[in-house]
Amino acid sequence: MQRASKRKMSSPCGEIAHGLEDVLIKTTSISDIDGERGILWYRGYRIEDLARNSTYEEVAYLLLYGKLPTRGELDEFTSRLAKNRDLNPATVEVLKNLAYAHPMFAAEAAIATEGAFDDDNRKLSESLRTGKYGDEEKALAYRIAEKLVAKMATIVAYHYRLSRGLEPVRPREDLPHAANFLYLMFGKMPERLAVRGLDLYLILHADHEVPASTLAAQVVASTLSDLYSSIAAAVAALKGPLHGGANEAVVRTYLEIGDPSRAKSIVEAATKPGGPKLMGVGHRVYKAYDPRARILKDFARDYMTKYGDRDNLFAIAVAIEQEVLSLPYFRQRRLYPNVDFWSGIVLYYLGIPYEYYTPLFAVSRVVGWVAHILEYWDNNRIFRPRACYVGPHDLKYVPINERA
Amino acid sequence: MQRASKRKMSSPCGEIAHGLEDVLIKTTSISDIDGERGILWYRGYRIEDLARNSTYEEVAYLLLYGKLPTRGELDEFTSRLAKNRDLNPATVEVLKNLAYAHPMFAAEAAIATEGAFDDDNRKLSESLRTGKYGDEEKALAYRIAEKLVAKMATIVAYHYRLSRGLEPVRPREDLPHAANFLYLMFGKMPERLAVRGLDLYLILHADHEVPASTLAAQVVASTLSDLYSSIAAAVAALKGPLHGGANEAVVRTYLEIGDPSRAKSIVEAATKPGGPKLMGVGHRVYKAYDPRARILKDFARDYMTKYGDRDNLFAIAVAIEQEVLSLPYFRQRRLYPNVDFWSGIVLYYLGIPYEYYTPLFAVSRVVGWVAHILEYWDNNRIFRPRACYVGPHDLKYVPINERA
Ligand SMILES: CC(C)(COP(=O)(O)OP(=O)(O)OC[C@H]1O[C@@H](n2cnc3c(N)ncnc32)[C@H](O)[C@@H]1OP(=O)(O)O)[C@@H](O)C(=O)NCCC(=O)NCCS
Ligand SMILES: CC(C)(COP(=O)(O)OP(=O)(O)OC[C@H]1O[C@@H](n2cnc3c(N)ncnc32)[C@H](O)[C@@H]1OP(=O)(O)O)[C@@H](O)C(=O)NCCC(=O)NCCS
Repeated sequence: MQRASKRKMSSPCGEIAHGLEDVLIKTTSISDIDGERGILWYRGYRIEDLARNSTYEEVAYLLLYGKLPTRGELDEFTSRLAKNRDLNPATVEVLKNLAYAHPMFAAEAAIATEGAFDDDNRKLSESLRTGKYGDEEKALAYRIAEKLVAKMATIVAYHYRLSRGLEPVRPREDLPHAANFLYLMFGKMPERLAVRGLDLYLILHADHEVPASTLAAQVVASTLSDLYSSIAAAVAALKGPLHGGANEAVVRTYLEIGDPSRAKSIVEAATKPGGPKLMGVGHRVYKAYDPRARILKDFARDYMTKYGDRDNLFAIAVAIEQEVLSLPYFRQRRLYPNVDFWSGIVLYYLGIPYEYYTPLFAVSRVVGWVAHILEYWDNNRIFRPRACYVGPHDLKYVPINERA
Repeated sequence: MQRASKRKMSSPCGEIAHGLEDVLIKTTSISDIDGERGILWYRGYRIEDLARNSTYEEVAYLLLYGKLPTRGELDEFTSRLAKNRDLNPATVEVLKNLAYAHPMFAAEAAIATEGAFDDDNRKLSESLRTGKYGDEEKALAYRIAEKLVAKMATIVAYHYRLSRGLEPVRPREDLPHAANFLYLMFGKMPERLAVRGLDLYLILHADHEVPASTLAAQVVASTLSDLYSSIAAAVAALKGPLHGGANEAVVRTYLEIGDPSRAKSIVEAATKPGGPKLMGVGHRVYKAYDPRARILKDFARDYMTKYGDRDNLFAIAVAIEQEVLSLPYFRQRRLYPNVDFWSGIVLYYLGIPYEYYTPLFAVSRVVGWVAHILEYWDNNRIFRPRACYVGPHDLKYVPINERA
C-alpha cells in the first residue's frame, strides 16, 4: 500500500487535509496529550495519579461526568454498571452465530443488536428525530452510555467462551469491572494481581483524544443516528491494524526472538535503511517515553517477580528497551517504547489470547468513545467535509453498442 | 439540541473546522456537484444522461471502474453481481434474530456477519496487516466491493420478509438488480414500470461526494480494517435522521395534508419565524432545483398517470411545489425541492413501507461508499484529526473519602 507522505497535499481547490492531520474538529475537556513531554491527562488529572489511586469505574465516571465521584456517587455508578451487564437474549444468539468469527466482527454485530432492542435507545432516537435534546434526553443518553460501558465487557467475554465451545457464565453483580471480566472469561475467581493488571490496562486505554475510532463514533453520532451504532462504527475502526492491534504484533515478535541475547541484533536490524520497523517503538504524538508504557512496565515487573517471567518475555523486552534507549538512531528520531510495547506483555501474562487484545482495547475505550459523543452532541453539527473533484465534466454518453 | 452556528468557531488552538465544513479530505474523480447550477455528475457524466439511458448495474460499474462498460464488461459484471446475491447461512440467522428490529440495525449486524465469514475478506485483511496492497490485493478488494453491492439488496429484502413473518425468497440470477430486489421483497415478478422506478431511484442515489456516511466508511477503511466493517459504519451513519430518512418525513407530512387545497397554508406556515421547516425543501449544497428531484418527479407523473394518484400524493406535492416556487421567502433563500421531496413519493407508489426507505438508500449508495474507499486506499492515510483541549491541567488527586 502506497504510504502517503506527511507533507501537505495541494489540489486545484486548495490544500487537502490528508488524514485530517492537524485539523481541529472541536474543543474538548476530556483528555489531553503533551507529546513533547510525554504527559497524558484525563479531565486534568495525570494518568500516573489515576493509575496509582483509581479503578476503572472511577476513571469511567471521571471521563463521563467530568469530575471524580464522591463515595456515594461511585457506589451508585458501580452498581448501575453491574446491573447493566446482562445481554439481550437476541444478542447472545447473534454471538453464537459469530462464535467462530473474529471477535471484533462479533462485537460489531452484537452492539447493533443490543441497540436495536434497547427501549431507552428507541426513546432517545424518537426525541432526536424531532430535534429534541433537553435535560431528559441527556439523562437518557448518559444511561445508554453506561450500558455500553457495562455490556462491552460481557460481549467480549461471552464471545471468548462461545469460541471455545464453553457456556457463557452469568455476570456477577458483586464484582468490580475488571474482576468480573476475568471471571466471565475464565469462569473462575481471578487472582488479585491479575485483576489489578487488567484494571490498570483498562484505566490506561480509556481515552486518548480523537484517533480514528473516536472520530468514526462522532461522525456517526453527528447524524443523530444512535449511541450503539456509533460505538459499533468505532469498533469497526479500532479493528484496523493501523489502530488497534499493534500490541499483538509486539508479543508475537518478542516471542520469536526467544532469548534476551538476541535483542541487540533485532534492534539493530530495525535501524538499517529499509529494515523492518521495531514493533512497539515510536508514536505519532509522543516524542518521549509514553507515560502509559512506564506504568505497564512497572506492573509487568511486579507480576513476573511473583509468578515468573513466562516465556522470557520480560527479559527480552527489557533487553530490547535498553538497546532502543541507548542507540543514537532512536534517540535522534525521538523513538521510545510506546504503550503497546508493554501492554501486550501484560495481557500475555494474564492469559488473554492474542485475538482478544484489540477487543479488550474496546472494552476500555468504549467509555472514551461515549464521552466524546456526548461532548459533541452538546454542540452538534453533522460532519460534511468536501472532496476536490479532479475528473472530467460533461462526457458524452455513448450508447453501449457503440463503445470501444 | 443546540444547533451550532455555521460561522467559523475559533479556539485557543486556532480555527475549529466544525462538522469539517469546507475541509477537503481528498481529491476525487467519482462524483461532482455544482450546487449553484444544480448539476450532478458521476465520473463526468450528467445524472440526466445516466437516468435516461443507464441501469443501476451500468452506473455501479461506472462508479467502481471509472468508465462505462462495453457490452461484454457489463454482461460479466451483471452476472457476477447476480451470482453474489446469496447470504451466508449465519447472516440469515442473524437477520432472523433481528426480524423485529429496525432494518438499519439489522443491516449493520448482517454486514458484519457476512464480512466475518468471507474468505476473500480474510485474505485481503491478512495482506493489509503486512502493508501489502498490490494488484492482487486490489483485485480482491474489487471482488469484495461487488459482493457488498450485490448482498446489500438481499439483506434488506430478507429483513423485510422476516419482519412480516414471511419466508425469504431465493434471489434470481436471471433478473436485473432492481427487478430482483422487488422480487425478493414481494415474492412475485414486479411490474415493468415499478422496476423502472426502483432502478431510477437506485441510479440517482448511488453517489453524492462525501457526506457523513461516506466519510464514516473512509475513516474506518483508513485504519485498514475491512470493507464490510467500513460499510457497516456507513450504514450506521446513514441511519441518522439528519442524513438518510428525510424522504420518510416528506411522505408522512404530505399524507397528513390530505388535500391539495391545504398546501398553501402549510407552506406559508413554514415561512413564519420559528415555524416548522417544510420537509423536502432546501439543501446544504444545492441552491437550485435538485436535478435528481426533477427526474423523480417526471417518473412519479408517468406512474400516477398509469396507475392513479394513490392518496392524492402527486397532486399534493405539485401544489406544495407551486407554492414554494412562487413565494419570495423560498426564492430569496434559494430553497428548492430536494431529492427527498419526490423520492419518498416514488417509493410510496411502489409499495415500499416507510421503514425501508433509508435501507433502500443504502442498497443504492453502497456502491458509492465502496468506490470512495477504494479511491482512498490508493493513497491511504489514517484519519487522525485533533481536538483543542480547553480543560484544566494537573489537578490534585484527592482521596475519595476527602472529596466534597
Ligand atoms: C507509530 C509510528 C507509525 C509513528 O510514525 P511517525 O511518527 O509518523 O514516524 P515516521 O514513520 O515518520 O518515522 C520517523 C523516522 O523514524 C523511523 N521509525 C519510526 N518508528 C520506527 C520503528 N518502530 N523502528 C525503526 N524505525 C522507526 C522511521 O523509519 C523514520 O526514519 P527516517 O526519518 O530515517 O525515514 C511508527 O513509529 C511505527 O510504525 N512504529 C511501530 C509500530 C507500532 O508500535 N505501532 C503502535 C503505535 S501505538
Ligand atoms: C436541508 C437543510 C438543512 C439545508 O440547510 P442550510 O442550507 O444549512 O440552510 P439553513 O438551515 O441555514 O436555512 C437558510 C434559511 O432558509 C430557511 N429554510 C431552510 N430550509 C427551509 C425549509 N425547508 N422550510 C422553511 N424554511 C427553510 C431557514 O429557516 C433559514 O432562514 P433564515 O435565513 O430566515 O433564518 C434545510 O433546508 C432543511 O432543514 N430542509 C428540510 C429538511 C429536508 O428536506 N432535508 C433533506 C435534505 S436532502
